[in-house]
Amino acid sequence: MPELRKDPIIDRWVIISTERGRRPSDFINIVEEKKDSFSPFSPGNEDMTTPEIFAIRPTDTPSNTPGWNLRVVPNKYPALRVEGHSNRRGEGIYDMMNGIGAHEVIIETPDKDQNLSDLDIPAIQNVFRVFKERILDLKKDIRLKYVMIFKNHGYVAGATLKHSHSQLIATPIIPKLVLEELEGAKSYYDLKERCIYCDIIRQEMKDNYRVVYDEDYFIAISPFAARSPFETWILPKEHFSHYETIDDNRMRHLSLTFKTVMQKLNVALQNPPYNLVLHKAPMQDNVMKHYHWHIEIMPKLTRFAGFEWGTGFYINPTSPEEAAQFLKEIVI
Amino acid sequence: MPELRKDPIIDRWVIISTERGRRPSDFINIVEEKKDSFSPFSPGNEDMTTPEIFAIRPTDTPSNTPGWNLRVVPNKYPALRVEGHSNRRGEGIYDMMNGIGAHEVIIETPDKDQNLSDLDIPAIQNVFRVFKERILDLKKDIRLKYVMIFKNHGYVAGATLKHSHSQLIATPIIPKLVLEELEGAKSYYDLKERCIYCDIIRQEMKDNYRVVYDEDYFIAISPFAARSPFETWILPKEHFSHYETIDDNRMRHLSLTFKTVMQKLNVALQNPPYNLVLHKAPMQDNVMKHYHWHIEIMPKLTRFAGFEWGTGFYINPTSPEEAAQFLKEIVI
Repeated sequence: MPELRKDPIIDRWVIISTERGRRPSDFINIVEEKKDSFSPFSPGNEDMTTPEIFAIRPTDTPSNTPGWNLRVVPNKYPALRVEGHSNRRGEGIYDMMNGIGAHEVIIETPDKDQNLSDLDIPAIQNVFRVFKERILDLKKDIRLKYVMIFKNHGYVAGATLKHSHSQLIATPIIPKLVLEELEGAKSYYDLKERCIYCDIIRQEMKDNYRVVYDEDYFIAISPFAARSPFETWILPKEHFSHYETIDDNRMRHLSLTFKTVMQKLNVALQNPPYNLVLHKAPMQDNVMKHYHWHIEIMPKLTRFAGFEWGTGFYINPTSPEEAAQFLKEIVI
Repeated sequence: MPELRKDPIIDRWVIISTERGRRPSDFINIVEEKKDSFSPFSPGNEDMTTPEIFAIRPTDTPSNTPGWNLRVVPNKYPALRVEGHSNRRGEGIYDMMNGIGAHEVIIETPDKDQNLSDLDIPAIQNVFRVFKERILDLKKDIRLKYVMIFKNHGYVAGATLKHSHSQLIATPIIPKLVLEELEGAKSYYDLKERCIYCDIIRQEMKDNYRVVYDEDYFIAISPFAARSPFETWILPKEHFSHYETIDDNRMRHLSLTFKTVMQKLNVALQNPPYNLVLHKAPMQDNVMKHYHWHIEIMPKLTRFAGFEWGTGFYINPTSPEEAAQFLKEIVI
């Protein structure tokens, strides 16, 4: 059973995924990227994944057979397990609990050579719709407090398979960075009675220095204190704390905004590896006036080093204003 | 002038190092490791670095000429600048200040092919002594609140030059992660009237599951909530908040402990890339009963991905107990 452990000093939770148990020899010479052209996610290889939880497929095709447009499967090497109780406990000064939760893979397309941003708008919209559906489904399990949805694109960004996919990890705790955002946004709201993200959007639209793309429902910006070059956030212009409340029309606009932003990044940086994370309010909580869901995209251009992980302090060699200006000028 | 900018939501400071100003094209195809055998840090190339601030060299050799054992030079591409005023200011909801501070490189050996852990004990002790000397010197500049000392070893861990070196960044702010440690340790002290690190050391020595190496003055452990496989901390067994108070005898023991731990890691993981960060109390502050300086070493074996930076939540596939057991059994 994997374990969730809390750092006693800074309250950071870590998954000790013992079932993947790795000996030192497993880490030697793994830096090589696999050049495999075979994909276990391709149609016809459905028996190589765990059985699907959800799929978008013609109604006349049976589960776990070809014909699908998108599949959701449990991760074959899950970091957390659905079964069991959290069993919070202590061991001297340390705190831990069982690693319960869910770890799923969203296979975004049957075509192993297509990237998410290559797909047409309806197909991208399917991906964003599945994010919503999975959150709504996992919300029913009240042991689970948060669903992290993220995408690692490219080997350097941590992807182990090239076939385009996102991942979802549902946890019985709220991750530290999300908690910090919630608390920071709450302090601001208590002081001003306004959502800090709404204020950011207002200021960015007025200043216009850091706007990458702006449409009816969404805005993409280079954040003021970007951690790395060309970091880009996509925010809904209206105030929503929970991603899962998004409607079809807004989902279409989100897909359009995402595709446009990615196309700009792909032109500017020649298809960079990137990480994408969906930030949203904890699913068991009610609507919040102070928190605002958004998507953070971080092209992986610099190697984060000791400095960053040891201090929580980043050096960004490209100013957000320059990055935004550059991306804005790229016509798609 | 570089700028220090604060994320308005979570109060994380970022250096926007505009003088390094990078256009998108500078990031394309940089993933290749340089195979250069030439080192600008080698003796004879002293004119390729900025003039030395400090050196350990025979008294009859002039500055910036060969003959040295160790040199400290300002980083040629500094993230921060010593000159000027911090000039804290706002821009709407955003906060920023000038990027004042110091950014120095400690060239640990004249031999470009030797690693820090290959050096003999007196040479390693010189490196730890220089850390102390530089902190004591930079402390005189009361604009500077913290000195981050870190080492990136190996390309994957972020080193841009192979020649063994550490870096030092002095900042007018206290980095977020350090602040969190200080606050977490303070809360614990307020509750228990004991240092949490001293309690960790006591529990680890009693349990003995996670002890990697134990000697008179120092202990090396796999931390209970390790973020990554084979993460190892070295702590002084006695309570000291400020690294810079270390005496020569303890410095010798620290060098011995460091070399032993690194030799074990090098055997277990075949000379892994790693990051090392010195964690210590802010230099302008008085002795603290609640904080305890220590060194964190993180072999770079897994690629941190979207999940980690997006959530502050880590998955570690090797339990600290297994890692400690493995390292302990390696006889050096």
